[in-house]
Amino acid sequence: MYDIVVIGGGVSGFVAAVNAKRFYPSKKVVVIEKNPKKLIPCGIPYIFDTYGIDDDLMHLEKKLKKFNVELITKEVRSFDVNSKVIMLSEASGESCASGSRAEKETGENNTDANDTNILKYEKLIIATGSKPFVPPIEGIENAYFIKKDYDYLKDLVSKAKNASDITIIGGGFIGLEIADELSKTKNVTLIEAMDSLLPNSFDTDFSESVKELLSKKVRILLNSKVSKITKEEVLVNSRTIKSDLTIVATGYKPNTEMFKDVLPLNPKGFIQADDYFRVSKDVFAIGDCVEHKEFFTSNPTPLMLASTAAFDARVAAANLYNLRIIRHNKDALNIYSTVIDSKTFAAVGITEKMAKEQGFDIIVAKTVTHSTHPPKFSHSTDVTLKLIFSKKDLYLLGAQLSGGLNSAEIINILSLAIQKSATATDLYTMQIGTHPILTPPPTFYPISATAAEALKES
Amino acid sequence: MYDIVVIGGGVSGFVAAVNAKRFYPSKKVVVIEKNPKKLIPCGIPYIFDTYGIDDDLMHLEKKLKKFNVELITKEVRSFDVNSKVIMLSEASGESCASGSRAEKETGENNTDANDTNILKYEKLIIATGSKPFVPPIEGIENAYFIKKDYDYLKDLVSKAKNASDITIIGGGFIGLEIADELSKTKNVTLIEAMDSLLPNSFDTDFSESVKELLSKKVRILLNSKVSKITKEEVLVNSRTIKSDLTIVATGYKPNTEMFKDVLPLNPKGFIQADDYFRVSKDVFAIGDCVEHKEFFTSNPTPLMLASTAAFDARVAAANLYNLRIIRHNKDALNIYSTVIDSKTFAAVGITEKMAKEQGFDIIVAKTVTHSTHPPKFSHSTDVTLKLIFSKKDLYLLGAQLSGGLNSAEIINILSLAIQKSATATDLYTMQIGTHPILTPPPTFYPISATAAEALKES
Repeated sequence: MYDIVVIGGGVSGFVAAVNAKRFYPSKKVVVIEKNPKKLIPCGIPYIFDTYGIDDDLMHLEKKLKKFNVELITKEVRSFDVNSKVIMLSEASGESCASGSRAEKETGENNTDANDTNILKYEKLIIATGSKPFVPPIEGIENAYFIKKDYDYLKDLVSKAKNASDITIIGGGFIGLEIADELSKTKNVTLIEAMDSLLPNSFDTDFSESVKELLSKKVRILLNSKVSKITKEEVLVNSRTIKSDLTIVATGYKPNTEMFKDVLPLNPKGFIQADDYFRVSKDVFAIGDCVEHKEFFTSNPTPLMLASTAAFDARVAAANLYNLRIIRHNKDALNIYSTVIDSKTFAAVGITEKMAKEQGFDIIVAKTVTHSTHPPKFSHSTDVTLKLIFSKKDLYLLGAQLSGGLNSAEIINILSLAIQKSATATDLYTMQIGTHPILTPPPTFYPISATAAEALKES
Repeated sequence: MYDIVVIGGGVSGFVAAVNAKRFYPSKKVVVIEKNPKKLIPCGIPYIFDTYGIDDDLMHLEKKLKKFNVELITKEVRSFDVNSKVIMLSEASGESCASGSRAEKETGENNTDANDTNILKYEKLIIATGSKPFVPPIEGIENAYFIKKDYDYLKDLVSKAKNASDITIIGGGFIGLEIADELSKTKNVTLIEAMDSLLPNSFDTDFSESVKELLSKKVRILLNSKVSKITKEEVLVNSRTIKSDLTIVATGYKPNTEMFKDVLPLNPKGFIQADDYFRVSKDVFAIGDCVEHKEFFTSNPTPLMLASTAAFDARVAAANLYNLRIIRHNKDALNIYSTVIDSKTFAAVGITEKMAKEQGFDIIVAKTVTHSTHPPKFSHSTDVTLKLIFSKKDLYLLGAQLSGGLNSAEIINILSLAIQKSATATDLYTMQIGTHPILTPPPTFYPISATAAEALKES
């Protein structure tokens, strides 16, 4: 009945379906998603203040229809990769991406399955995403998580409106963005177990700047361990702090329990697939549920980003029937950007600390300039860029940047530079365009200025 | 007395001096500039309203000192490439970059020259820039030009403040930006001889959008010829329009008259140099005064941009004594960005029209998405991206984009893509970072979405 079946209607499922239809227009494409009220995941932190939760809806069915992709609002109960069949059941209300039913549990319902609950496929794309990691803390049931579930988040937003003291556990991007949002109107405490914020993305010189900006508005506790959560309090480092609402943002885990007996999973539960996201000839896995490998070492990395999910989806969808769109960047590049107290922080590749831990021999250079020129425009800010190069051949390994609204796209220039094996020489001799309102100055454009410093050292 | 002598303190001279000192710290570096009140050239259109003229000053002497570069406020009267000597005279007040004295005229003064007016050099960098092209129109002496001269522009700004009807001749970037600025408080008429605005940078689909936005505030006359300018009127297409102030922005010409008997000039007056901007072993020429070659054909192109000037300067300065920083992008890439009525327009490479004229077999793709996601943020706007690829191998040849404040840096991603020979496949499989406030959505990131359309066609 359908040729291409996509399980999951999040970012990766959506992008895969749209591109599958684009590259194989004669095929019938369907997305199975039991809870089609999907949110744009990276926008979730901003539902607490900047805009309401309803502005963050993806309008999945409407959007899919625009691309001639169908939506089935049901739950996947099991599938058989040999006979290429999926068994569906009526949606239980919980998101498909929660993957609560394992294949084995489905026997009894299948006996009654009518035709509409049995789906044959030519190509299957698994995009079941991730769900919050639940840390083993006493009273964790009193805390909220950042689930990608509309009704749950709607309740959380209303709880937050009524709270006065809010605790956020987890100093990663989501924790920081929510802390920044809520601090506009609430007393917010942010608790992080490590000794710095965003430790996987930024070296301490940058994470200290993040901390400095955020601590103007948020109480930040580093090196801190939460041992108990109640409805009114959080016990942190043996000290009790008032907390009307506690939000846990300590990461996500892949939504793959239902596949554990049928598909290859790595020890952390990610589905294992090849460079084109093929688990087997006709089964693909993309997004948060698939294993990614770190760009410079090919070690498995628990990367879960909407942008990465969309990338996976593009590569898989275009190559469902034959490998027509070759990828040269064989592994997954960490690319992050966020806004803290109106300042942009962005990073790509490996940090200085990670490079040293991995044994890379490196040169590091850093410069400070302005996001516009002259720096008088109201939206202008300092731009600090750090570049990390391999010492011998001067290949770009990583970049960290703080700056203005254009900084995330400057990091994307450097993302492409890494993917195209650019060296410090390439960056120093790169031709760029500049404009007073839109970019840093041509005289000290951050990429060329920082590359120059690295070349001087080398 | 000095090792490295730079003639001209504009963008290219400044960047060359700073980088010469960076890469050869033991050398003594000096900039000769008779009028050190230099303006940031790309900021000049914004002195009319957004900020005052004094905010646009480069503070040349102070900045050079910071980098241990000296400044001599004198005029270059002649030089001898065989004995490697420059003859100076006291500044006449006019900018060095106006190059009003040819070598031959200098004989009488030299006889009295004392030591401080004779400068020996090891390496000479010529960065004399450009000056306005003066079109042959009756009464042109009644018009103002956009000279890079502080005192002249200060007078022009004050004239503009007192005018009510202002005419701008020339529909290029500078003309448009000044029209946009002045239209906030004045009645502005913009006159362009060609049938579209920005014809060298944008195809008509984009230049029509520019025209539509600008014509809300500015009277625009295309295909129009000015035959006479008086202090009160402009005669255009045999019709008289009121004009208290007429500003001519019909392009620039290289400031090279003084070199016409000593250095190789092309028919348009640009100094001819090699890929490292060497005119001869010890003489370099950079910026607006040197010949550039178009990236895809190597035909001479009259490119005069601050960003290009800064690029030339970086390449020349690092390679003064030996070729240590190799450039792989052998020719000059057109990269433009501007803001019209708060919308960004940016372009790189060749347009669809130019590609066809040059005989390229091309594929063109175009998509529309948003500059942020969800598109609710106050700074969000539609993003339209057009990509031009070679038909057979799908190499990127050009891009045009309209969008938000981050669009100029998106064009810089595509600039790097062209310089690293990226194809539509590379762009479709490019990993990018996204953030709701900072970038277009991961689901329809303009570069991957437009590359997808091109791949679908191919």
